[in-house]
Amino acid sequence: MIITLLTDFGLRDAFVGTMKGVIKSITESVDIIDLTHDIPAQDIRTGAYVLGTAYRYFPPGTIHVAIVDPGVGGSRTPIAVHIGDAYFLCPDNGMLTYVLAEEPLHSAIALTDPAYHLKPVSNTFHGRDIFAPAAALLASGTALTSLGPSISKVISLPTPKAELLSNAITAHVVHFDGFGNAYTDLSEEAYREWENGEVRVTVDGIEIPGPMPAYSNVLPGMPVAVFGSNNHLEIALREGDARQTLNLTIGSEVQIVRR
Amino acid sequence: MIITLLTDFGLRDAFVGTMKGVIKSITESVDIIDLTHDIPAQDIRTGAYVLGTAYRYFPPGTIHVAIVDPGVGGSRTPIAVHIGDAYFLCPDNGMLTYVLAEEPLHSAIALTDPAYHLKPVSNTFHGRDIFAPAAALLASGTALTSLGPSISKVISLPTPKAELLSNAITAHVVHFDGFGNAYTDLSEEAYREWENGEVRVTVDGIEIPGPMPAYSNVLPGMPVAVFGSNNHLEIALREGDARQTLNLTIGSEVQIVRR
Amino acid sequence: MIITLLTDFGLRDAFVGTMKGVIKSITESVDIIDLTHDIPAQDIRTGAYVLGTAYRYFPPGTIHVAIVDPGVGGSRTPIAVHIGDAYFLCPDNGMLTYVLAEEPLHSAIALTDPAYHLKPVSNTFHGRDIFAPAAALLASGTALTSLGPSISKVISLPTPKAELLSNAITAHVVHFDGFGNAYTDLSEEAYREWENGEVRVTVDGIEIPGPMPAYSNVLPGMPVAVFGSNNHLEIALREGDARQTLNLTIGSEVQIVRR
Repeated sequence: MIITLLTDFGLRDAFVGTMKGVIKSITESVDIIDLTHDIPAQDIRTGAYVLGTAYRYFPPGTIHVAIVDPGVGGSRTPIAVHIGDAYFLCPDNGMLTYVLAEEPLHSAIALTDPAYHLKPVSNTFHGRDIFAPAAALLASGTALTSLGPSISKVISLPTPKAELLSNAITAHVVHFDGFGNAYTDLSEEAYREWENGEVRVTVDGIEIPGPMPAYSNVLPGMPVAVFGSNNHLEIALREGDARQTLNLTIGSEVQIVRR
Repeated sequence: MIITLLTDFGLRDAFVGTMKGVIKSITESVDIIDLTHDIPAQDIRTGAYVLGTAYRYFPPGTIHVAIVDPGVGGSRTPIAVHIGDAYFLCPDNGMLTYVLAEEPLHSAIALTDPAYHLKPVSNTFHGRDIFAPAAALLASGTALTSLGPSISKVISLPTPKAELLSNAITAHVVHFDGFGNAYTDLSEEAYREWENGEVRVTVDGIEIPGPMPAYSNVLPGMPVAVFGSNNHLEIALREGDARQTLNLTIGSEVQIVRR
Repeated sequence: MIITLLTDFGLRDAFVGTMKGVIKSITESVDIIDLTHDIPAQDIRTGAYVLGTAYRYFPPGTIHVAIVDPGVGGSRTPIAVHIGDAYFLCPDNGMLTYVLAEEPLHSAIALTDPAYHLKPVSNTFHGRDIFAPAAALLASGTALTSLGPSISKVISLPTPKAELLSNAITAHVVHFDGFGNAYTDLSEEAYREWENGEVRVTVDGIEIPGPMPAYSNVLPGMPVAVFGSNNHLEIALREGDARQTLNLTIGSEVQIVRR
């Protein structure tokens, strides 16, 4: 059984290691895999996006613990949810936005039963005191529905949608990776249906060659539009940082017009 | 069996991965868990503090390897120690300060027997050449006392103590986490015994609301005093960085006075 | 069975975690160990060097996946190679330069058979789509030679060589670690054969005490030359950063002259 961890805790402290200790104290026979712990502090949207790119590559039954939790200790609910063929434990604050857009929700419960919390439960570290024990119990065979009361609704954040008109598409930058590549909300599938000959891609008036098959279709240092590893249009700079060089931000518009 | 690793090696090099290779070459059936490798370079005190927050969350028998070692290759002794229900391998330079403050010392040995070192042993990387092999041997059943000669004393560093007077407490910042939260030397237990009605918390003359139950008891961007996840008073900034905003340093005083 | 991962992907995204998911989806009974993911972006030479310092500390049969891949999606070939008693999967761009300098090449194949790729294979993330599945298949018993067509040659980059003259040695800085220690191309073995009494070590005219047995032979803050953990001459600053303080770069010359 696999438990993955995604947080904004960083790796400077032992927060993540401590969660692993709690999990291993309940069940040693579990594989714990880090997705990332460097989500920008409090940035739920980025956490949700990164989770959405990764979860589908794990075996069925994998338990994903995803914690970006500006409201820790407050009124937001810690939840455990069965979606598609996987389990997700997170604060109910939008962390599952991108997963719920793609997979059916089977069941959801609130992790509010103190019987399953570490004692004393802190108000600042629910990763250790609430999410880690629940993940370990799930991994060792406890049924999701026995971990707490059912809830009927899970929060999803609104997400931008690429606008496809007859002659032009407006896509939006929704995420940057660590190389500075910009990911947009235009899926390759939607684009292929719309496309019908040559196009011109621009960002802020600057023409970007593409869509190209690969970064290597342009020279090092040149910008390029590609359908990247998560099947959405990506604005990149070969061997460089598109975010900085093209001065992109979340929400930056990418225009595609038929020639 | 679990081995944890805490170092100031960073993750830019393969130092940590190399230690894991050495361990797995001796015994494959061990779980290796990173506590952190981003202790500030040479900062024994921070390493000792972080180790002190994490060790108790691991199963009994866990082997903790903790290396912040400005004196590597010099006269400080590499040691292995049985404390409470866990084992600790580290240079004898104060790394165990916070663990020894809480748990009984059962036995301690010097890792000076060349029979258990990688050959040739380097003078710059004892993590690989001395600590990793010893941890792997312990994990595979070798008795602690057979790994080297007994020693009678383990070094502890002096630590500040919160001063509790009848009408006021002076606490001291002893650690910062990666979010910029400041941890003090005032335990919740000591505070609860002392408290008797309303108080006023100040840092450098600035009033800090609290102690509050959770960060979320104040608005985003506001400072707050809470008893945090390790049961000591913490000065935080909700969704922000208290260290920077309040200009805190190690040793900064937190005043608590009765109203 | 152990699979190690070395990349320049960083840990901000879930790229590395996703590769682990792909591996575990094919075979759960494999240990995955990170060497490092913080190779400077696109820096093949540093990736090759770090791989060269680490691989020999793993058990025989270990599978090393090493990806620094500025040409991803272009014409460079993804390869799998049996060298010494280990396996290496990487783009054929020089990643194996330091390994091939020390171990015999037994066999090499191109990972070009689409039957072993994730589908659809992307042009931007071969770590996930080509290297991870191939590593998992190797780990679960598939023969290397069945994974693709044989190739006869693997690319090695030219590397500087220390120049040993009768009265003087010129060595070159070839790598920096995360502490700012500078590693040179002068092996301890070559030096010991050459040495014959006292020497004077200088960098840019500044005398560096050494070679000394350990960092601790000089005072904190002082520079020192030592034969470090990979048996090559290292220029360090005790408890400091030699790279910054001595203004070193890759290629900086270290002069050793007989007194």
